[in-house]
Amino acid sequence: MHTHAAVFGASGYTGLEITKLLASHPSVELAVAASDRWQGDRVRDHLPVSGPAGDVHYRPPEAALDRAQSCQVAFLATPADTSVELVPQLLERGIKLIVDLSGGFRLKDPTLYPRYYGFAHPKPALLGEAVYGLPEVAPKDSLSGAQLIANPGCYPTAGVLAMAPLVSKGLCEPSIIVDAKSGVTGAGRKATGDLSFAEVDEDFRAYRVGKHQHGPEIAQSLAGMRNAAIDLTFTAHLLPVRRGILATCYAKLAPNVDPETVDGAVARFWEGARFVRHVAAEAVTLKAVVGTNLCLVAAKVDPATRMVTAFASIDNLIKGAAGQAVQNMNLALRLDEGLGLTDLKGTYP
Amino acid sequence: MHTHAAVFGASGYTGLEITKLLASHPSVELAVAASDRWQGDRVRDHLPVSGPAGDVHYRPPEAALDRAQSCQVAFLATPADTSVELVPQLLERGIKLIVDLSGGFRLKDPTLYPRYYGFAHPKPALLGEAVYGLPEVAPKDSLSGAQLIANPGCYPTAGVLAMAPLVSKGLCEPSIIVDAKSGVTGAGRKATGDLSFAEVDEDFRAYRVGKHQHGPEIAQSLAGMRNAAIDLTFTAHLLPVRRGILATCYAKLAPNVDPETVDGAVARFWEGARFVRHVAAEAVTLKAVVGTNLCLVAAKVDPATRMVTAFASIDNLIKGAAGQAVQNMNLALRLDEGLGLTDLKGTYP
Amino acid sequence: MHTHAAVFGASGYTGLEITKLLASHPSVELAVAASDRWQGDRVRDHLPVSGPAGDVHYRPPEAALDRAQSCQVAFLATPADTSVELVPQLLERGIKLIVDLSGGFRLKDPTLYPRYYGFAHPKPALLGEAVYGLPEVAPKDSLSGAQLIANPGCYPTAGVLAMAPLVSKGLCEPSIIVDAKSGVTGAGRKATGDLSFAEVDEDFRAYRVGKHQHGPEIAQSLAGMRNAAIDLTFTAHLLPVRRGILATCYAKLAPNVDPETVDGAVARFWEGARFVRHVAAEAVTLKAVVGTNLCLVAAKVDPATRMVTAFASIDNLIKGAAGQAVQNMNLALRLDEGLGLTDLKGTYP
Amino acid sequence: MHTHAAVFGASGYTGLEITKLLASHPSVELAVAASDRWQGDRVRDHLPVSGPAGDVHYRPPEAALDRAQSCQVAFLATPADTSVELVPQLLERGIKLIVDLSGGFRLKDPTLYPRYYGFAHPKPALLGEAVYGLPEVAPKDSLSGAQLIANPGCYPTAGVLAMAPLVSKGLCEPSIIVDAKSGVTGAGRKATGDLSFAEVDEDFRAYRVGKHQHGPEIAQSLAGMRNAAIDLTFTAHLLPVRRGILATCYAKLAPNVDPETVDGAVARFWEGARFVRHVAAEAVTLKAVVGTNLCLVAAKVDPATRMVTAFASIDNLIKGAAGQAVQNMNLALRLDEGLGLTDLKGTYP
Repeated sequence: MHTHAAVFGASGYTGLEITKLLASHPSVELAVAASDRWQGDRVRDHLPVSGPAGDVHYRPPEAALDRAQSCQVAFLATPADTSVELVPQLLERGIKLIVDLSGGFRLKDPTLYPRYYGFAHPKPALLGEAVYGLPEVAPKDSLSGAQLIANPGCYPTAGVLAMAPLVSKGLCEPSIIVDAKSGVTGAGRKATGDLSFAEVDEDFRAYRVGKHQHGPEIAQSLAGMRNAAIDLTFTAHLLPVRRGILATCYAKLAPNVDPETVDGAVARFWEGARFVRHVAAEAVTLKAVVGTNLCLVAAKVDPATRMVTAFASIDNLIKGAAGQAVQNMNLALRLDEGLGLTDLKGTYP
Repeated sequence: MHTHAAVFGASGYTGLEITKLLASHPSVELAVAASDRWQGDRVRDHLPVSGPAGDVHYRPPEAALDRAQSCQVAFLATPADTSVELVPQLLERGIKLIVDLSGGFRLKDPTLYPRYYGFAHPKPALLGEAVYGLPEVAPKDSLSGAQLIANPGCYPTAGVLAMAPLVSKGLCEPSIIVDAKSGVTGAGRKATGDLSFAEVDEDFRAYRVGKHQHGPEIAQSLAGMRNAAIDLTFTAHLLPVRRGILATCYAKLAPNVDPETVDGAVARFWEGARFVRHVAAEAVTLKAVVGTNLCLVAAKVDPATRMVTAFASIDNLIKGAAGQAVQNMNLALRLDEGLGLTDLKGTYP
Repeated sequence: MHTHAAVFGASGYTGLEITKLLASHPSVELAVAASDRWQGDRVRDHLPVSGPAGDVHYRPPEAALDRAQSCQVAFLATPADTSVELVPQLLERGIKLIVDLSGGFRLKDPTLYPRYYGFAHPKPALLGEAVYGLPEVAPKDSLSGAQLIANPGCYPTAGVLAMAPLVSKGLCEPSIIVDAKSGVTGAGRKATGDLSFAEVDEDFRAYRVGKHQHGPEIAQSLAGMRNAAIDLTFTAHLLPVRRGILATCYAKLAPNVDPETVDGAVARFWEGARFVRHVAAEAVTLKAVVGTNLCLVAAKVDPATRMVTAFASIDNLIKGAAGQAVQNMNLALRLDEGLGLTDLKGTYP
Repeated sequence: MHTHAAVFGASGYTGLEITKLLASHPSVELAVAASDRWQGDRVRDHLPVSGPAGDVHYRPPEAALDRAQSCQVAFLATPADTSVELVPQLLERGIKLIVDLSGGFRLKDPTLYPRYYGFAHPKPALLGEAVYGLPEVAPKDSLSGAQLIANPGCYPTAGVLAMAPLVSKGLCEPSIIVDAKSGVTGAGRKATGDLSFAEVDEDFRAYRVGKHQHGPEIAQSLAGMRNAAIDLTFTAHLLPVRRGILATCYAKLAPNVDPETVDGAVARFWEGARFVRHVAAEAVTLKAVVGTNLCLVAAKVDPATRMVTAFASIDNLIKGAAGQAVQNMNLALRLDEGLGLTDLKGTYP
């Protein structure tokens, strides 16, 4: 029998992507899709999805909440302030697994929420229970059987995977710069003047400088790898593309580290990873990852300055959101990690 | 002494463009800029404009209306329903010249307004007084000394200039197709989901099929050239570019017209035109006109089918709006037609 | 046992797309990939393709020709002048099915080749044997068991599917206009200044006006549906997008046809079609089809002028090339028409 | 009497931009335009330029060299290996001022040429004579009367202007990171597959990592400001836009510097600069500078980490090339620095 899944926030860009991934998943079936906007429509009215998933009707969130009771899995592609309200209600209803794609359960320190998310966290006790689901660097078996997974942000996925080998192996100093560039779907589906085509096309700029909520998330994740604080400088930029994040990261090599050994260490770190591939710096592109669950990484050291430049690229809606959520679900349900994900072939050209 | 001009709707894309053009105009000076949105800011806060024009403050429309009394010219870059209210108030205040860039005074038949603009025209008597300002085809001297000019729509400017030689010289039959493609600034400055970067980028589609308000405007303009009805089919499409319109138009040659003579007739028609240039079909591009007041045109006949394909390209914000408004002002004030316009050098590459 | 397939021209954009489709096909396996450019590399070096297809090595065309002998199917994603040389060699080697994606075998009249393709056809006798593979309008069973299939051009696929119900049911007059707009991958993978980003971005223009090789192909296809000549006017335009074609087509309704009945007739025509969907005119977009084998169509009649405007949109590399080639192969091999195609979910957003 | 100018490499993107700027310059007149590609055409055939500049004919370089003898100024928009050959020939002919826009005379150390430019410098003695023309930071009066000006690269212009206040005032440590992103016209007018629309659109990537020729140029320029070595890490990225560079730069505050004072120090540094404007970090955009000679800068300090993030944006073809060349010419000829430049109003929207 198939596992049944509910998707909340199904009409947003991330929700659409989860819907498409579940429609092809061999073991999990979309059963409930919550959306105020498209209430009454069917999935096939909005996506080129056939089969049973195409027949699912969009329902208002309250109705979906009731129906979710018959599901084993719930994906929350909702804003953080909605997720923190939904999670307790879903737990009460006995849902086996909740994957929350918002920032509502990512930060361990509740005091960061007012500053970065604009609200005091209503359920700080749950922050300790939520498992941070970046599978490639999560503690072994931490995801297996998890009930509440905090799916990482798109920038943290790219930034942390770029730096993970260097930080966790102690190859670099703790002062780290993440200069990241994202396509506009990272901002969600919003009707704002700032994100209109006439404003974004042919433009490029940094935004939320010094106050982006993904800053503390990256710092928390990297600090966890070395059990010591990280001095993180994070800048987010808006690219005139629909999808994709490229992170260019900088750090100084730790003393005694031979510059010649770094590239090999990074390569070895990623041996066996299902979705991370170590390539040359110039091969870390958006076009090689958009439409897939892959993360491409590279590291380049300048022996003269002993600075290492580390790169990572992902599709912000897949490896940076919906794909990673499915990967986390697979692991939590003890299915093969790549189910429904390894057959994605990208949109290039 | 300089002529003083007021701009209403100064923070919209068309209003910004008028502001930039006036800032370089040798004989007319921006004196009043009306905008609710930017009230209190100065022009230099929003545009790389130096000199006196940069110092002008944005004022709320009512305050601007009072100050406009000291101006000789008013440009209305406002929605049609605003323009039809503003024009009588400006006329009362004795403004010498009003150039309305909305559709509020373009159609001669008031019965078309409810269907195409969504309101009954409050001042139908003024429709007869307004001069339709497409200078290249307007009756000789009709613009000189005009008090109220209806500045043509962007699609009509392209479509009518493409077809004018063929229709006015009786070279084609009256069944005419205008297949037009426009950049997104043609839709104005709106914060709608439909015009967000993630929706428009990499997409292309027709919109308002069979009900676009520029359809009757093109038909009225072409009909006036041959004093007979036109069977017009007009389709508007949205291009993923910021600026520019390309119109591809189709008609059958009139009987007795020698296909070999058409190109020459079009070329002769445009001899001496300040802003229209006859080129090869493949040279009618957006990049050659964006940032200028030029219109490029071409016509190609297939002798086998006797169909003529006529092309025109313009910058929708300049020749299709603000530039043409300045051209009309120059003519109304009996200045040189090209003042403030001939020095525009485009944005290519 | 799987059917084995060879792909010639595997490093072009169409070749890449066939490779991706075969990698997911349940009954046919990629066995040979010919490319001079990538000789020695494996498929997985250039595409996110895993499994056996990813392990296939690119070989020079001559070596591939020898290996193709063990294949049952060959796809030619090569220029027309290469295809006309390859087909006889493959036939000699006893290949069961050749799907040629070039124009080398599309036109029935060999005298058109010098003008439109720049060479005298070396094997005119084969033109009669090739089956034109537009499955939705091909004569019933004509593809089943075919040995040589001429896969339609991208513009003809869109233009013919837009007009097929109107022409084949005699609803319109034979003077037809196809105004088509295509993304740049339609031009193939070329390093020309004209197709550089700096020239194409923010631009739009018509090209090859009056001499595009897809003109006679559309005319031939539509004429076949009514057994009478068509007066076709075809214009190709270059869109600043990577993928997708939208065709806007115009014709006059035939006398006695009730304008009210046209939309219903078009809808009925497409009932049961696997890959064509009848929608509203404004819903015929690129974003709804890019990444899929779908064709969206619409027709809108103006009762006043009795003109019908018909729309179609496709992904030029899938339904306009590689996807249609797989669809044709499925039919020729008497497999389910949608194998390897119905699970495509598009690239939106 | 006007000063006469010759432009070599006039059909490249930079050459086109110089041509447009000279066509509007009040004191300098375009007299000679060298281009192999467009030999025999006139400027008006390729640009919307009227007046005498539009009538200038493109000539082959040798013919232009002879004619340049009657000019007082020569602009070299040629590759570095061409410029190093042309400069001695122009000096021999007694040209008063040469502004070389290539890298041929930018680096003071001739030993860097083989590695970064691929040739041994044929005239190392001239490297000492060339004045590096970044006017905002050049030693006072160094440009006045100069005979040979090395016009800075586009990335160095952005990177150095972003960091100049911090480095020259000793506010930061000497380990500096410049993470820069450029539109494709920065690569010049090339017909390469890598720069084709289908490859660049929707993509983003770093290129020439660790070996870009602008790295040593930035290091040389910043080192000159503090009379001490700089540890520079420079990464160039390719943006899917036509024009514009944004540089995001990182450095640690020097000990004893109060983080609160940095922004004010930067603002004061730029007081009175004609073309540099200090704004908020989020206001450093491409759209605010493209089409102008402006450079927008910002600096943001994180008191917790004591890292400063400095931003700069320019139009790579204007402030990063042609506009700066005209600015340098104005200064060398002791004209007003802003002649022909302050009236540029940008291409937004």
